[in-house]
Amino acid sequence: MPALLESVAEGSPAAALVAGGLARVERVFDRQLSSDLAFVNDLCGHVERYRGKMLRPTLLLLSGLATGDGEISDAQVTAAAVIEMVHMATLVHDDVLDEAEVRRRGETVNRLHGNETAIILGDYLISSAFHLCSGLDDQRVALRIGAVTREVCEGELLQLRNRGNLELSEGAYFAIIERKTASLIGAACELGAALAGAGDDIVRRLHTYGLKIGCAYQIQDDLLDLLGDEGVVGKSVGRDLDKGKATLPLLRLLAATGDDGLRERLASGDRAAFADARRLAVETGAADEAAGVAVRLVEEAKAALAPLTASPALELLVRLADASVTRRF
Amino acid sequence: MPALLESVAEGSPAAALVAGGLARVERVFDRQLSSDLAFVNDLCGHVERYRGKMLRPTLLLLSGLATGDGEISDAQVTAAAVIEMVHMATLVHDDVLDEAEVRRRGETVNRLHGNETAIILGDYLISSAFHLCSGLDDQRVALRIGAVTREVCEGELLQLRNRGNLELSEGAYFAIIERKTASLIGAACELGAALAGAGDDIVRRLHTYGLKIGCAYQIQDDLLDLLGDEGVVGKSVGRDLDKGKATLPLLRLLAATGDDGLRERLASGDRAAFADARRLAVETGAADEAAGVAVRLVEEAKAALAPLTASPALELLVRLADASVTRRF
Repeated sequence: MPALLESVAEGSPAAALVAGGLARVERVFDRQLSSDLAFVNDLCGHVERYRGKMLRPTLLLLSGLATGDGEISDAQVTAAAVIEMVHMATLVHDDVLDEAEVRRRGETVNRLHGNETAIILGDYLISSAFHLCSGLDDQRVALRIGAVTREVCEGELLQLRNRGNLELSEGAYFAIIERKTASLIGAACELGAALAGAGDDIVRRLHTYGLKIGCAYQIQDDLLDLLGDEGVVGKSVGRDLDKGKATLPLLRLLAATGDDGLRERLASGDRAAFADARRLAVETGAADEAAGVAVRLVEEAKAALAPLTASPALELLVRLADASVTRRF
Repeated sequence: MPALLESVAEGSPAAALVAGGLARVERVFDRQLSSDLAFVNDLCGHVERYRGKMLRPTLLLLSGLATGDGEISDAQVTAAAVIEMVHMATLVHDDVLDEAEVRRRGETVNRLHGNETAIILGDYLISSAFHLCSGLDDQRVALRIGAVTREVCEGELLQLRNRGNLELSEGAYFAIIERKTASLIGAACELGAALAGAGDDIVRRLHTYGLKIGCAYQIQDDLLDLLGDEGVVGKSVGRDLDKGKATLPLLRLLAATGDDGLRERLASGDRAAFADARRLAVETGAADEAAGVAVRLVEEAKAALAPLTASPALELLVRLADASVTRRF
């Protein structure tokens, strides 16, 4: 059972059901990536080790269980594998963009095999994901995956365009993370419910739930990158400051201090300023403020589920929402 | 009318029909890429200028005309736009891999906006292509596009793995170019015929035609990169030697000279050796030999079309096969 699911599984009859579904997702995932070229399989084997939290498949399966007949269908398993594969592709390309060296406590593809191989491996993963979902009877999935993957790319492009822009508005920050991170999580929850046969209102509510916890999840990632310990987080940290990304804790810090000197020092890549920012984010309460925004998003996510009938799967969706901002990895 | 089509259009009643179809392809292409983010549209506008020869859409439409009822359907136009979009994505990522600065006489995306933006823009193009073909009624297209895009990536990975390997066998060389270049051209011809309602044997023949001219086309690209003039070719040349790619003219040259000294000097990146290779490829006849292989592939491609009923579209397919190895750009 993936660590994130395990952290909320205690006493839940739904957790084992989801774990069984995730094992099916892994089988579909691995089968789809197999190539007749041995070294391509080796590269994919490396990427399969990135599968850690399985957040998106977990949410897709739970969304289906909380809104359907209590069974996990093959179509849901396939859609979950597709979404995880798209997510893996974005991780592989993100690590190139971020020059990251560590992911899931192992070396990144770009570190091991160079940027070129990482770029094409990411393309192989995206293509494999689309190929997999094109085989489903229900074409809605492929259309939705195509649309949301475009949106993820738009978010990444928007973020790249704002690299080094530490005067970003919070509105622009949310426009980036909604596209880059939350949209795919929203699509996972939405597709889980849609494939379970839920009505439009319920599908929309699951989408809202996913978007909100997706944003909360990203804010928690921002906090872990700023304040976390690489040994605990399991991937390179401190990359956001290095790459000039304006994250929510940083924007709150700059608003709190009103200190243009700090902004300029950070923008110039001054490493002493990075250390100051980490210290001040805690001292000024900026980090707590950002965490508070994430907690409010989690409350809104849970509120969106209010009309759903009580069930063990719904209970896990609620616990996972909470866990998205209490996790330390 | 794109220059490649124009070069073979003289006196052909099919050329204007295809040119009209290509104009529809361009409209679908541009509409699909439009984003609500203005700067994303600007980036895509830059990529649209890469559309030069429109080889793949031209072949798809002609394959349909030569095997169907003489009409160009919306599904064919969409499939042609999808294939061109996948091709554009590979160009954008290839330019990052090759550190190329010039494409279609303009600066490359990586040169203008950096590798990071070029990586994500390529992802945006792939995602947009898959989204577009997921909207077609006939799911065969999306399945085929997913499968062939995977194959293109496998070819690229195989090529990367053999960078600097100047002892590559010709068999391995063809395994690379069949996947990397020919597979997408083969899929274009195959889908054109399949969407025209052609029978299995004819669809297979169009696929063979596309694969063969795809290989010939790549060999001609190898020759232009080795011997061509950037001003005429319209993109960076000499990149293959720079990037340690074993191309067919080079493999023939090394076989002809049997000179390990040259191989070692080339492998070490010695620029004087690059100039020697260019001169010797002509003097030893290695370049002519490679061109001869391409010409034989073109003959095989044309032979595959033998059972087709004579038509202006078939005549253009034959002329385009010839043009793929006589072109200078």
